[in-house]
Amino acid sequence: MIKIGILGSTGRVGSLLIDDLANDSEAKVGAVHVYGKLVKNLPTDTVVTNDMKVLFESSDVIIDFSAPAATEALLTEVIENGGNKPLVIATTGFNKHQQNLLLEASKLVPILYATNMSLGVAVLNKLVALASKTLRDFDIEIVEQHHRYKVDSPSGTALTLAEHAANARDLDLDEVRISGRDGQIGARTKDEIAVMALRGGDIVGRHTVGLYNDGEFLELNHTATARNTFSKGAIKVAKWIIGKEAKLYSINDALGL
Amino acid sequence: MIKIGILGSTGRVGSLLIDDLANDSEAKVGAVHVYGKLVKNLPTDTVVTNDMKVLFESSDVIIDFSAPAATEALLTEVIENGGNKPLVIATTGFNKHQQNLLLEASKLVPILYATNMSLGVAVLNKLVALASKTLRDFDIEIVEQHHRYKVDSPSGTALTLAEHAANARDLDLDEVRISGRDGQIGARTKDEIAVMALRGGDIVGRHTVGLYNDGEFLELNHTATARNTFSKGAIKVAKWIIGKEAKLYSINDALGL
Amino acid sequence: MIKIGILGSTGRVGSLLIDDLANDSEAKVGAVHVYGKLVKNLPTDTVVTNDMKVLFESSDVIIDFSAPAATEALLTEVIENGGNKPLVIATTGFNKHQQNLLLEASKLVPILYATNMSLGVAVLNKLVALASKTLRDFDIEIVEQHHRYKVDSPSGTALTLAEHAANARDLDLDEVRISGRDGQIGARTKDEIAVMALRGGDIVGRHTVGLYNDGEFLELNHTATARNTFSKGAIKVAKWIIGKEAKLYSINDALGL
Amino acid sequence: MIKIGILGSTGRVGSLLIDDLANDSEAKVGAVHVYGKLVKNLPTDTVVTNDMKVLFESSDVIIDFSAPAATEALLTEVIENGGNKPLVIATTGFNKHQQNLLLEASKLVPILYATNMSLGVAVLNKLVALASKTLRDFDIEIVEQHHRYKVDSPSGTALTLAEHAANARDLDLDEVRISGRDGQIGARTKDEIAVMALRGGDIVGRHTVGLYNDGEFLELNHTATARNTFSKGAIKVAKWIIGKEAKLYSINDALGL
Repeated sequence: MIKIGILGSTGRVGSLLIDDLANDSEAKVGAVHVYGKLVKNLPTDTVVTNDMKVLFESSDVIIDFSAPAATEALLTEVIENGGNKPLVIATTGFNKHQQNLLLEASKLVPILYATNMSLGVAVLNKLVALASKTLRDFDIEIVEQHHRYKVDSPSGTALTLAEHAANARDLDLDEVRISGRDGQIGARTKDEIAVMALRGGDIVGRHTVGLYNDGEFLELNHTATARNTFSKGAIKVAKWIIGKEAKLYSINDALGL
Repeated sequence: MIKIGILGSTGRVGSLLIDDLANDSEAKVGAVHVYGKLVKNLPTDTVVTNDMKVLFESSDVIIDFSAPAATEALLTEVIENGGNKPLVIATTGFNKHQQNLLLEASKLVPILYATNMSLGVAVLNKLVALASKTLRDFDIEIVEQHHRYKVDSPSGTALTLAEHAANARDLDLDEVRISGRDGQIGARTKDEIAVMALRGGDIVGRHTVGLYNDGEFLELNHTATARNTFSKGAIKVAKWIIGKEAKLYSINDALGL
Repeated sequence: MIKIGILGSTGRVGSLLIDDLANDSEAKVGAVHVYGKLVKNLPTDTVVTNDMKVLFESSDVIIDFSAPAATEALLTEVIENGGNKPLVIATTGFNKHQQNLLLEASKLVPILYATNMSLGVAVLNKLVALASKTLRDFDIEIVEQHHRYKVDSPSGTALTLAEHAANARDLDLDEVRISGRDGQIGARTKDEIAVMALRGGDIVGRHTVGLYNDGEFLELNHTATARNTFSKGAIKVAKWIIGKEAKLYSINDALGL
Repeated sequence: MIKIGILGSTGRVGSLLIDDLANDSEAKVGAVHVYGKLVKNLPTDTVVTNDMKVLFESSDVIIDFSAPAATEALLTEVIENGGNKPLVIATTGFNKHQQNLLLEASKLVPILYATNMSLGVAVLNKLVALASKTLRDFDIEIVEQHHRYKVDSPSGTALTLAEHAANARDLDLDEVRISGRDGQIGARTKDEIAVMALRGGDIVGRHTVGLYNDGEFLELNHTATARNTFSKGAIKVAKWIIGKEAKLYSINDALGL
C-alpha cells in the first residue's frame, strides 16, 4: 500500500481525501500534519504530527490542500532539511517568494503543481488556449463561482485559465487582469481580461471563459458537481508521481494530455 | 402627431429612437439637442439646436438617453428657466446632486425615470424582490454584461435590480454592495451583494440575479436581444406620460404592473 | 421521537432519508418497506417489512420516494384496508388511474404531494406563474437536466413548472406540451410549450423556464447542488403534516408560501 | 466589382446579404433568383430573374440561403445544364438525394458548403471534436435555440456539431442521435446524443454542447448576436472561393483553420 501524507487534512478537500483513501485498494493515509485541530475519520494506524520531518518520514508521497503559509513550511522542509518525497500541491494564492520556493524545491524532488485536479479543467485550459489564439479579436472575460467559505479570490483555477488565455496572445496577465469594475471607467480596453469572483451557497466550483466579438460570442464553462472530483484527481496523480525524476510537473503531464 | 424631443440623439439608443420614430404613425421627432456632433437620418422638418429652451419649445415630450452632465442641464432648464414639458429619462450614473435635481424637477413636470425601458426588466425587478424576501437565507450575487463601449459600471439596470433585492431584506445597498473581489479577502459575509460588470463584443444587455444556498440555487436572467427594445419602450412611455400630473413615475406606472 | 416510514428506501433519495434521519433529534426511521433488496445503514430497531399493513402500523407518517406501482400499492392500502397515517409523496410519473387514487386517498388521510421538495423550486413555481401571466406574448420553453440514471422524462418537477405556466395562461398543458422537435416541422405555434429532458453525468437537478419575445427574453433557473435537498425537505414536511386534517396538500401549504 | 448572385433573396439572411453588399467596396449584387416574391432594397442595376440560367450568367459566384428544393434546382443547373460558377451554400435540411447532388456538382464547380458561416462556430466545432475525444467517458447532449419562425429542427449547425462529437468517438450519428425524451424510457444509454431544439422570440442562434460525467461537466456555447454574422461570413467566403478548383470545401478551408 502506498502511504499518502496529507497537509491540509482539516480542510474541505483534505477530509474528502481521508474518506476516498478509506475505500482505495492501492493507497492509504500514511500521516497527517496538524496545527492543533482535530482530524475526523482517521484510520487507527495513521501518524498524526505537527512536525514536517515526521510527515515526510511517514509518507511515500505528500498531497497538499492547505494554505500558502503551510505550503511554505512544506517546501522549506525540502529545501533546507532534506525532506525527500514527491509532492502534489493544490494550494492556491502564493506570493512571489512562495512561487520561487516551489521552483527551487522542484529541483530536488518531483512536484506536481496544479490549481485544479480535475480532468475537465485540464481540457478546458487547452480549449481556452486554442480559442484565445484563433479568435484574436474577441474580448475575453472570466467568471468563477465558489461556496461562501472560500477565502481567496479569484480562484487559482480561474487565474490559471486567465494565464492560458493571456499566454495564447503573448500578453502578460499581471498587466491586463482586472478584478472589478465600478464607476465612470470608460470603454473596455482591447486586451484587458476581467476575472470576476462570485461567492455563495455550497457551490463546488464553476468557471466560465467568455470570448466576445461583434455578432457572436463563445462561452466555455466547467462545473464541478462533487468536491471529491478534486480529492480523487489528487490521489490519481499522487500514485503517478512516485518514482518520477525531480521536476515541476503539470496536471497535463499526469493525465497524458 | 406627437413631437418628441431627443437629448442624446448621437448615442446608440438615440439614433434608434430616430429610426423607430420614422416608422411611427402617432409620433415623430420634434427636435434634437446637439453638442456639435452631426445627427444622422433626421427628417427634414426637425429642429436641430444646442439651446435647451428651443428643445422644450419644439417638443411635446422629451426623451433623454444622454449622459449625467447633459441630463443636469435638462433638469436645470425645468427648475430655473421654466422648461415645461414631460420628461422620460433613461440616463444612468447620476451623482447625489443630480439625483436631487431629478426629485426637484419632478415637482414641476411629470418625469418618468427608468434605468431600463424594457417590459422584461420591469418584471424581473418584481421577481427579484419576491425571491429575495422569501429566500431570506440565500446569498445574492448579480452579474451584468454589456458591449465593449459602455462607459459606466455596473449598469443602472443592475443597480436597480440590486436595490430591489436589498430593499426586500431591509438592507442599505450602499452598505452591502461590492463590485470586485481580489486577494485573501476571507469568507463571504452574509449580507454582501456583489454586482459584477462584464464587458465585451456587441452585447446589448444581460443581467443575472443569483440566489445561492446550501443544496440549491436560483438564477434569474434577462437578456436584451435588440437595442431598440429600449427605444421602443421609451417611445411607448413618452406617449403615456403626456397629460399626467407632475410627479416622479416609474416604469411600472406606465406598464400598469 | 416521530417514527417515519419509508417507501422507496433503496432508491437514491431513500438512502439519503435514512442518513439524514440518523442525525435528526426529533424523528427517526420507524419502518422501511422493501421489495427484496437490502437496505443499507438502517438503525437496529427499524422494522423491515414487505407488508404495507406493517409499514402503516410501525410509522407515524410515511414518506414515499418510490415508483408509480409502489405508490399505487400504498394508496390502495389507505383506500381498501384502512391504512391510516399521513403521507408525503414525491414519486413522479403517475398515470390517470394513479392520479385518481391519490385524490381518493386524500379524502381519508392528509397527503402532501409534491414533485419536488425544495424551497427554491416552490418559489420558482410562483415566479413562473407570475411571469407567464404578465408577459403574455412571450414564448415559453422549459429545459430540465438530471443524472444519467433517471428513468422517467421529463421530470415531475418540469411538468409541474409547465403546469404553472400553462395555468397562468388558461391553457391545457396536455394540449400544448411537446417533448421534442425533429424535421421540417414548420414555425413554432404561439401556445406550444416544449419541455425538453437532458440526461448526463451525476447532475442532481437543473430546471430552466425561458420566456422569449422579440427584443428580449427571461430565463428562470433552479439548480439543486446536493441530493439531500430533497430528503431534508421531505422530512421537514413530514413533521408538518402530522395532525393535519385529511386533504391533498401542496408544498406551498407546508412552507407557508 | 465582384458580381454576387443570390438564391434565397427574400429570406431573413438573403435580405441582409443585399444590405451588406450595398456597403461593400469589392462586391455587389449581380442577380437575384426569385419565385414571385418582391425583393426589397435592390440596386437598380440588379438582374432579377426566375431562370437559373440567367442567375449563373449574371454572377461571378452564387450564395444560397434558400430551402432544399431551391438548392436542388441550383445543383441541377450545374450538373445537367452546364451552370459554371462557384457556389457558397448555407441551406440546411437536405435529404439523401440532395446530399448526393451536392457531391456530384462539386466535381464540376468549387462549392463551399457550411451549415453556419460564422468564425466562432467553426472554432466551436474544433473544440467539440477535441473535448469529445479526450473526455471519452463524458455523456454528450446538445441544445440549440432559434427564433420562432425557423421551420427545420434541429438546426443544421447543431447537426454539424453533433457530427463532430460522434466522429471523434467513431460513432454513427444516425444511430446515436435522439431529438426528444418522453415517458418511462429508462436510463440514458452510454452513446446516445440528444440534439434538442428550442424555439422562441427573435433569437438569432444559440448552440450548447455539454459533456457530463460523475463529479464534473463542461458546457461549450456559441451565441450569435446579430443575424448579419452569417451574411458577412458568406460574402467573405464567396470572395475567397472565386478561382479555386472544383471541389467540396468546408468553412475551415476558407478561414484557414
